[in-house]
Order: sequence, then C-alpha cells, then structure tokens
Amino acid sequence: MMKYWLLSLFVLVSSLCSCPCRAEDSAMENIVTEKKAEESHRQDSADLLVFILLLTLTILTIWLFKHRRFRFLHETGLAMIYGLLVGVVLRYAIHVPSDMNNVTLSCNVNASPATLLVNVSGKFYEYTLKGEISANDVDDIQDNEMLRKVTFDPEVFFNILLPPIIFHAGYSLKQRHFFRNLGSILAYAFVGTVVSCFIIGLFMYGCVMLMKQIGHMGGDFFFTDCLFFGAIVSATDPVTVLAIFNELQVDADLYALLFGESVLNDAVAVVLSSSIVAYQPEGDNTHTFEAMAMLKSFGIFLGVFSGSFALGVATGVVTALISFNFTKLRDFPLLETALFFLMSWSTFLLAEACGFTGVVAVLFCGMTQAHYTFNNLSPESQDRTKQLFELLNFLAENFIFSYMGLTLFTFHNHVFNPIFIVGAFLAVFLGRAVNIYPLSFLLNLGRRNKISSNFQHMMMFAGLRGAMTFALSIRDTATYARQMMFSTTLLVVFFTVWICGGGTTQMLSCQKIRSCFLVCCRLKYSGLFNASCLMMDFLCLRLQIGPDGVERRSTKHESAWFFRIWYNFDHNYLKPILTHSGPPLNATLPACCGPLARCLTSPQAYENEEQLKDSDSDLILNDGDITLSYGDVTVSTDAAGAHTSGTPVGGVAVNSDEALDRELAFGDHELVIRGTRLVLPMDDSEPPLPLDSHRHRHKNETMS
Amino acid sequence: MMKYWLLSLFVLVSSLCSCPCRAEDSAMENIVTEKKAEESHRQDSADLLVFILLLTLTILTIWLFKHRRFRFLHETGLAMIYGLLVGVVLRYAIHVPSDMNNVTLSCNVNASPATLLVNVSGKFYEYTLKGEISANDVDDIQDNEMLRKVTFDPEVFFNILLPPIIFHAGYSLKQRHFFRNLGSILAYAFVGTVVSCFIIGLFMYGCVMLMKQIGHMGGDFFFTDCLFFGAIVSATDPVTVLAIFNELQVDADLYALLFGESVLNDAVAVVLSSSIVAYQPEGDNTHTFEAMAMLKSFGIFLGVFSGSFALGVATGVVTALISFNFTKLRDFPLLETALFFLMSWSTFLLAEACGFTGVVAVLFCGMTQAHYTFNNLSPESQDRTKQLFELLNFLAENFIFSYMGLTLFTFHNHVFNPIFIVGAFLAVFLGRAVNIYPLSFLLNLGRRNKISSNFQHMMMFAGLRGAMTFALSIRDTATYARQMMFSTTLLVVFFTVWICGGGTTQMLSCQKIRSCFLVCCRLKYSGLFNASCLMMDFLCLRLQIGPDGVERRSTKHESAWFFRIWYNFDHNYLKPILTHSGPPLNATLPACCGPLARCLTSPQAYENEEQLKDSDSDLILNDGDITLSYGDVTVSTDAAGAHTSGTPVGGVAVNSDEALDRELAFGDHELVIRGTRLVLPMDDSEPPLPLDSHRHRHKNETMS
Repeated sequence: MMKYWLLSLFVLVSSLCSCPCRAEDSAMENIVTEKKAEESHRQDSADLLVFILLLTLTILTIWLFKHRRFRFLHETGLAMIYGLLVGVVLRYAIHVPSDMNNVTLSCNVNASPATLLVNVSGKFYEYTLKGEISANDVDDIQDNEMLRKVTFDPEVFFNILLPPIIFHAGYSLKQRHFFRNLGSILAYAFVGTVVSCFIIGLFMYGCVMLMKQIGHMGGDFFFTDCLFFGAIVSATDPVTVLAIFNELQVDADLYALLFGESVLNDAVAVVLSSSIVAYQPEGDNTHTFEAMAMLKSFGIFLGVFSGSFALGVATGVVTALISFNFTKLRDFPLLETALFFLMSWSTFLLAEACGFTGVVAVLFCGMTQAHYTFNNLSPESQDRTKQLFELLNFLAENFIFSYMGLTLFTFHNHVFNPIFIVGAFLAVFLGRAVNIYPLSFLLNLGRRNKISSNFQHMMMFAGLRGAMTFALSIRDTATYARQMMFSTTLLVVFFTVWICGGGTTQMLSCQKIRSCFLVCCRLKYSGLFNASCLMMDFLCLRLQIGPDGVERRSTKHESAWFFRIWYNFDHNYLKPILTHSGPPLNATLPACCGPLARCLTSPQAYENEEQLKDSDSDLILNDGDITLSYGDVTVSTDAAGAHTSGTPVGGVAVNSDEALDRELAFGDHELVIRGTRLVLPMDDSEPPLPLDSHRHRHKNETMS
Repeated sequence: MMKYWLLSLFVLVSSLCSCPCRAEDSAMENIVTEKKAEESHRQDSADLLVFILLLTLTILTIWLFKHRRFRFLHETGLAMIYGLLVGVVLRYAIHVPSDMNNVTLSCNVNASPATLLVNVSGKFYEYTLKGEISANDVDDIQDNEMLRKVTFDPEVFFNILLPPIIFHAGYSLKQRHFFRNLGSILAYAFVGTVVSCFIIGLFMYGCVMLMKQIGHMGGDFFFTDCLFFGAIVSATDPVTVLAIFNELQVDADLYALLFGESVLNDAVAVVLSSSIVAYQPEGDNTHTFEAMAMLKSFGIFLGVFSGSFALGVATGVVTALISFNFTKLRDFPLLETALFFLMSWSTFLLAEACGFTGVVAVLFCGMTQAHYTFNNLSPESQDRTKQLFELLNFLAENFIFSYMGLTLFTFHNHVFNPIFIVGAFLAVFLGRAVNIYPLSFLLNLGRRNKISSNFQHMMMFAGLRGAMTFALSIRDTATYARQMMFSTTLLVVFFTVWICGGGTTQMLSCQKIRSCFLVCCRLKYSGLFNASCLMMDFLCLRLQIGPDGVERRSTKHESAWFFRIWYNFDHNYLKPILTHSGPPLNATLPACCGPLARCLTSPQAYENEEQLKDSDSDLILNDGDITLSYGDVTVSTDAAGAHTSGTPVGGVAVNSDEALDRELAFGDHELVIRGTRLVLPMDDSEPPLPLDSHRHRHKNETMS
C-alpha cells in the first residue's frame, strides 16, 4: 500500500504543482486562481480517499476469505473485481461537468518543449509538458474531468509500482532450489520466452491478415506490433499462483521452477519488448525485414539485459561489502534497514541513468541481496527488510490489480475486436504450450530428476499474466494497434487470474502434486490434526516416497554440473569475501594466497565456521503465509535430529563437496519439516523449545 | 528514506510525464522528442542518484558517530552539513548549459488554466500549470537547468514528507506521562505559541519599521507578514533534542512536557499561520486592522483545528473498531499492517478533502492509534507498524534536513538582511522566553509537582526550529517579504539545530537533569558496568530521591484533576469499547446498561482482566535507540517484584481509582527500570528470564 500511497501522493502533488504561488497582491484574479487550485486539491484528495477505502475493503475481504479458507479466488482477483465495480460507478453513475478549465491555444512553435512559459497579460506562468494527445481525444479531455482524474500516468506503473514487486520476488527467491534448477529455469526464461513471443507474434499476424481480409481492421497493424504483443503477453506473473503455492507448501522444486521461470520471464519480456520497439530499419518502409536492424535489436537485447544484470549484481555486492565491513552497523537496525533500502533503490536509478532497464536490475539486485547481504544483517534488520518489502509488494500488487479492473471501464480508447481476442487467447495458450512441453522434453534429456508430465501440466496451467503484462501494455496506448493490444491484454489477464488462478487448488489436487498441506487440512477436518507430530512426519515421509507421480531423487546425483561448479565457487570464495557465514578464506584458497586470505576473512568467519550451512536460503521464505497463519513452532524431532547430526562439530568444512551433500541432505529433511509445521497447543508449564531458545540466545548475543 | 524515495519518484515521474507518447508514425520530430525525453529521464535518475548516495553517506557517518559516541552533532545537523556541501558544489562547481528547451509564448488568454492544450502544427500537446514565475526569474529558469532540477515543489514537504514525521511523533508519544501533564502541555502549546507568535510579530514589526527608516527595505513588509513569521518560527521541532533525550533516557516528565509541547506546537503553528494568511479585511487597504476579519481568522483557527482534531481522532477510532471487531485479522499481520497504514493515510486525505489540515489530523490520528488500536494489534503488527513508521520518519527527516542545507545555496531569491536576521534571532529567543518562563510560573501555581527552574531552562534551550518551520517558510516564497523570511528562517534553523541541538548533552549535565544513563556511562567507563544490577537499582533510587534539583513527587497526589477525570472515563468506557485490554463494560457501567455492556464487551476482556494495566503506554517507546543499542534484557528484581505485587490476582479492578493509583505506582517503578536497562552477558546455561518467557508465551497464545 506504500506504493499506492506513493502513487496517490504523486497524483496529489502533481495536482498541487498546478497550485500557483499565493498572495502577491490583492488582485481578484489571484484569489480566484487560488480557490480553483484549492478546489482541485480537495477533489484529488477525495478521489484518492475513494481509492484507499476501496483497498481497505479489499483487505477486509481478503481477510474474510483467508479466515474462511475460501481458496477459489485469490486476493488479486478480488482486487480486480472491486476495481471493476468502481470503474462501472465512475463511468456510468457519476458525471462531473467540466468547468471549462482547458484552453486550446494555437501556437506557431516548431517543437513541443518540455517547459513552456506562457505570458498572460504581463505575468509568466510555467507549464510542463504532459504528453501528446490525439486529435479525437481533445474533446474527451474537456468532457470528463472525473475519469481523467483517476487515470494515472502509465509510467507510474513501471517506475513506482513494479520495482518493489520485482525486488520482492528476487529477494524472496528460494535460493537453493533456484540454483539447483538454474539450467532449466534459464532455458524456460530465455528460450521459452523468445519462442513464445515469436509463436504468438506469428499467430497474431495470421489473425491480423485475416482481419484485414474481411475488413475488420480499423488501422495499421504491423508484424513488429504482433511481435510486441507476443513479448508482453509472454511475461508470466509470479504472484497469484505462487501465493497459493506458498500457502499450500507444494514441492520445493516445482515451486522454484515456476517462480524462477516467472520472475526471469518478466525480465526477459521487458527487455525483449524494448528491443522490438527499437527495431527500426533504415529504408523508406520501416516495417520491412532488414537483417542489420534485426541484428541491432538483438544486440540491444543482449546489451541491455547483461548491463542491467551486471548493475543489479554490482549494487548488491556493494551493499554486501558495506554491511560486511561496517559490522557494528548491526547495532543500529534502523540505519541498516535504511541503508539497505537506499542501496536497492539506487540500483533502479543507476540502471535508468545508464539507459538500462531498472526493473531488471532491481530483480538481480534483490537476488544478490538475499544471497549475500542478508547474511550480514542483524536478525532484526532481516525481519525488517523482509517485512518492509513484503508490505510494499502487497500494496503495489493489489493496487495494480484493482487499477486493472478500473481501467476496463475508465479507459477511453478501448478497441475490442472479437477475432483478435479469440486469436489472442488461442495464441497465448499455444505459445505457453510450445514453451513448456518441447522444452521440458529437451531438458528431461539432460536432467537426472525429470520434470514429470504432471509438473508440465501444472506449469502450463500456472502461466498467468499479471502486473508486468499490464504495465507493458498500458505504457503506450497511442496507436490503434496498441489500443487493441491493451484491451485484449486486459481480457487475457482477467481470464488467467480468475480462471487459472482460482483453479490452482483444484488443479494441484487433480494433478496429485505432492502437497503435505492438503493432507494436513484433511486431517484437521477429521479431527486428527492435533494427534501427533510424529505421525505427521511418518505420513509425509510416506508421501514423499509414495507413488504420487513425482520421481524420488537421490540427493547425491540430482544437482547439475552447473549448480555444482557455481556452488563450489560461491561457497569457497564469494561467501567468505561478502558475508560472515562462509568458511575462512585461507581454508579454501591455495596456500600461496595466505596473506590475501587473512586480510579478506572476517574474524567472525572463524567463530562461525561450525555453523556452515546455507541458512540464508530458507530463512527468507520461511516467514510466508503458512508460518504466520499456522504458527511459528516447528515440532519435528527426527528432522531436527538429522540436522544436528548433519552439522560438523568443530571440524572445518574444507571439502565443499561434503558440505554440499550435507546441505542437500538437510534440504530434503527440511522439506519434511516444511510439510509438518503444526501448531500444538502449548502448556504454560512447558519449557521453551530447544530450537526457539537457541534462536533467542543467538539474538541476545547479537544485540550485546 | 521511504519518504525520500517517494519524493524522488515524484520528481522522476513528473519528468516522465513530460515524455510524449511513443511511435505513432516515423516522423523524425517524434524521434527527436523521444530522445530528448529519454535524455531528461536519465538526467533525473542521475540527479536522484546523487541525492541517494548523499543520504547513504549520511547514514554511514551517523553510524560512525553513534558508534564512537560522538554526541556533539546530531544526525539531522550532519544531514544539513552534507546538504550544504552538495549545494556549494551544485551552485559553483557544475554549470549545465541550458539546451534552450523553454519557449516563451505571449498569449491573449485571460486566466492561467490548470491544463493547457497547445496546438503545435496540427498536433495537440497537453501542458499542466506549474506555477507563476516572477518576471525577473524568467531568465534564471532558462539559465540554470541543474539548479532547477534539484529544487522540489514546496508542497512536497507539506504533503509527503511531514505527514509521516508528525504521525510518528503522535504514535510514539509516551501516553501516560503525556496525559499526566496534559494541562501544562496544552497551555504551552496553545497559549505559549500564540504569545510567542505575537511577541515575535511585534518585535519584527519594530525591526521592519527601523529598516524602512534607514532605507534597508527593498519591498513591502506588512504587519500580517510579521505575524506570519512569528507563527512559523514558533513551531518547535520535536526531533533533534528529543532523539538525544530518548537516548539519554532523561526524566519521563520532562520528556513528556517537551515532546508534547513540541508536537502540539507544530499543529498550532500550522493552523495559526494559515489563519493569518486568511486574514483579509474587506476595505480598500487590505493591511489595516479590522475587527471582523480578525474574528473571522480566529474562527478559522478554531474551526480548522477542532475539525482536524475530530477527524484524526475519528479515523483512529474507526481503525480501533475495525481491529477490535475483526479479531481474527491478528492472524495475518501483513493485512493488519496494511490496513493500519491505509487508515492512517486516509486520515490525511480526508482532512485535506474536507478543507482541514491533514498534518494536524494525522497527529491526532497517530495518538489515537497508539492509545487504542495498538492494543488490538498482534504483537508482530505492533512491531511492524512501529518499525515502518520509524523508518519513514527517519528517511523523511533526514531528507528534509539535507534539503535544507542544499537550499541555502541553490535557492535563487535569497534576501539576507542583517538587521532582520539579528532582529529575528533576538525575537526568537525573546518569544521562547516569554512563552516558557511566565507560563511555567503560572502553571506552577496550580501544579503539585512544580516545573523546576532547571526544567524551564532546559525547555528554553530545547526550543529548536526544524522541519515544520522549514516546510512552512518554503511553501510560499513569491514576495520579497516571504523571501526574506525564508532566508532568515534557514539561518535560525541552522543555528538552533547545530548550537542548541549539539549542546543538549552539555546542557543536560550542566542543568543536572536526572539522567540515569549518564551515571551508567560513567560507571561503564570505570569498569563497574557489569558489576551488579542491584547496585544500579540502588543508585538510581538514590538519584531519584537525591538532591538533584528535581522535587520528589508523591504518586497519589501528583495527577491533575483533568488527568484523573480523563483517565477514569478512558479506562472505564473507551478502552473496553475500543480495545481488548480494558475491564469488562458491565463492571464499569451502571447495572441498568447491562445488556448494552454485554453486547459491547469482547470475550477477551473477561479473560484479560487480570492483566489490567496500561501496557500500551510504554510499549511504543520501549523500542527506542536505547533498547536497540544497549540490549533487550531488563534485569531489575525489585522493580519486577513490585510490579507483580501490584497486580491484582484474580480480583476484578472495578474501582478505577485503585487501578489508577496502582498504575501510577507502577509508572514510577518503571521509571526505575528504565534507568537500569543493563545488558548482562548471559550464560548459555541460564534459563530464559521470567519476563521474556512470559512475553514469548503470550505471543504463542496469540498466534495459535
């Protein structure tokens, strides 16, 4: 909601900008202008208030749904419905007569300057350019002030609302499972998105040709437009389905695959769409194919993507280094959190200033922060940053989705074309299918733990379109083609969020994806919930090895060579340099680098080396909805036992392969733990649990 | 920093607004405009990046200062210094040649409309009014693009940066001590501010007369301007000194007096200044005295203040009722926090929409939230909301102060007049003195626990001018008089923050204000720190009853009749209706209201009635710097014992006088606890402390 606040403020302030300076002399006209400005400011506040009350209502309804375990409609779907309702009211019920504020001037200026000084009978007024308006909109602008007031600048979504959502996605990526499936995720994200983009583009071009034949087309629609459409609807949303996945605690690998794919998909789609826009052949006809322009676009894609990636990672590393070197900063969580926030935000600005894509940079910054900086933060700052970005994400997301609903009725230039819409729906599903199934088949050739067909159907089903698709399509609605795309995109988003998003629970149980949670639920309703945690462990272990459609993986051989190389490098060199949680560098570097290693290793590394485990990888997601809603006490004796026995006591973990194996083993056990987070009614007389008291002690040590 | 982000975004977005829609056709001019917009967007990002890096530097330096216990310069003072440095660089080192973006048009329009449509050779461009520019600034605008870029709209401060600061002040008000001193605080805030405003106004009018006599005055300067100046420099800042007070843990009553006074001062000053601006006699000469206009201004003052007050309290109560009735919302801290945030923000919008003062409404909303809603939140949401607003406050505050430093060099129309400046300094000190000393004398006639002369000197000294004064003075710098005021106000703020703020520690020890912390520090440096907590208790008790210039108060008789009436009403009726922490209503209401009482009382009230204590009043401030920096473990056996013995076991506290006395007694004991928050190195074998385990258990109960 912070994001929404931000946005509201922006609108508020941009309206305040139009408030002229006060009280120079007593001329009547000044007072009139002042009153008008005040009136406008009040009106803006009232409009925003409506928005805020709408969001408040959404939150209360979400709570009701969560409380009643009503899972057929996700909160984003709900936000859209409320947005739709308000849109209907604004469009048809309220009509604010224009106060004839606008004056059309005909001026003999050659260009449209960013700042305009208007000399009105001796006084100078400053005006800023807001944008070009097509000739047929001029009347609209003067007609309905109300609808214009609730219309935000499209760039707001891209520059204010998307960054926290994307950062949060990167920050909460389940690191271990992500890296374990990195190869597949990259394949889905890059190859898959590009394939999907071209398939959809080609299919839509066929539709457009058909429409032109039967005369259903009211304007230009080029092949690049089709490709652009393909790019924007190829961005799958990590939000909706994954929120449900997170609540249901489904298989961690499926989660990582889907989440990683969706998140990277977004990044690829953004850069891809901007590369397509940048395609400009030099000839007379700018819509012909030209190899050079094509190559240039490809170069732009590579350059922008890698540049944004490098920038994001660089800022993350700088933050890690600052928090690594200023260890005493841990004593002041407020400063630490502020610094973390500032550095993450500066990533966005730096990328934008360099001409890269800020949203993409923010994604990789979030991932780097989660992997390195997070380890250096004090426990309190870890909580604070998580909660802060969780809140920002929640508010931004719900705002975007409710605005989406609103836009269906308040946007003025909708172009709904039945052929295009039907074509788009077919193309979207075709594109997703061509993305998932052949790629999965190819990937399975190389993977040891195969992506089962259930997994594939689930990924196909979970390809929702959300905030990113919307932000990309609303960014430019100037031409006929773009307006048609925007209207169609809205419908695609509505359909996927309501139908696919709402059906995830059913789909999951239908596909028999392992989900201990469902078993828990069933047990709970049959009164067995509180019976015994050991029984649950047993059940989950049975589930894990049972014939549930997911092949059992051996912990030793499952990880890809890429992951193994990356893990070794990261564990031996990057973690010791950037965090306090790695092994001492002189244990991992060759002997000749001794002095350098001593210089770079923090004293804490020696102290902490018994605790050599990738604790960061799960801390971040542990606080998901499941933990909050179903309690914070993990009772899982044998899993905890495995963990303790897996931890080397006093020995230095030089052999990183060993550490890797141990970690992977721990990872699996942890999966069991995750499945059995039960809340047992605690006796007041019961002593605190060992796990909790350990955490508690650790906190005290850090504080002192 | 969130606030700063917000601001940055606003600037970024407002620049993006000037980016025209893309790619309609291939006309060359479109591409040029696009490139120009992209260039401008990049430049904006780079500028903001400089700001963010500046703030990052500030944070790192603040940390260094805190780490080295360097208390002579507060963080806000530091932010100002960095701002000054950047201002010097921007002003003298960098000169960006203008790209001749601006075009001056001479149009025959009668008024300056809010939206302007410019028809440039067949295409329509939309422009929004930014404000009036005085004729001599027109060249400036075209001259230095860079300085204009770093200049924010003054309304940003009022509508974006101040609200979270003021809300945080209200939210973190130490409730019990505030209400205990409510009469005195209201006297200082209302009578004191008005007196100070008129004294300063009169004094400055004398200065202005003198300047006119000797020909030092370059423009108009009316009596209303002098009064306006009086109003804006009467707003004392609760930030700087109180941050130090909070760290030093000084006497709670002095803290409450100063904090309450500063916070309410701000509210009074805002409304007062707007009432003065609203003073408009009907005659020809608008600067003569007219009784009707004066009365109207007074009416505006009363109306706006009480309206804002009522609105703020109303939203707070609504939030409390929502959180009271939707008890299961506690299971979802994210939703709870978002709701809390939205409702608080809607207060601001509601007040602005109704024509009241949003900042004032937000203050009272914060106070109501802290008193009622806070009790209904889950422990996690309590932490989250505190931390969120702490962060927002920190960022907004540091941004305002660094922008203040910047403005000294980047503002174009400074009018530094030596006579006016000297006069202003004298007037400010005179106004503060006339505010504090006579009022304290009068108040002491009625108070049982007198405000000692040390207290009074401290209050005199701690009257810093800060964010509110700056925001009020930068809001309008159109006329000569306002420009002179703005420049003088800047100097007053610099002086008070650097000299008075920096000297607080010295002043405190000089005035021998009871401050257990100083003793702690001294003990720490003499190696006795870890010796024994019992010894510390003893020392602090000694300090409290020792001859330290503060009179010993009896707990029974100290509270004013006003407080007693308020407390009874609040404890017996409001708390039970609005929170889960009060006694059951049917115990406090007359028997005839039985059904109503049963209907309004929550089931939890019966369960919780053993824990009848005003736990909210201190929870909010406990997490101040002292707790974070010096540990979270309270070891204070006798105080804890006193607490336990003071709690009724099983009995229903129907007699609220009894409860009040018990609470007051507890309050004093708690003061002792606060003085002795020590961190003892805990043995690993040591069992968790009773206080902590209790809190822990409570948390678990709430979660399940």
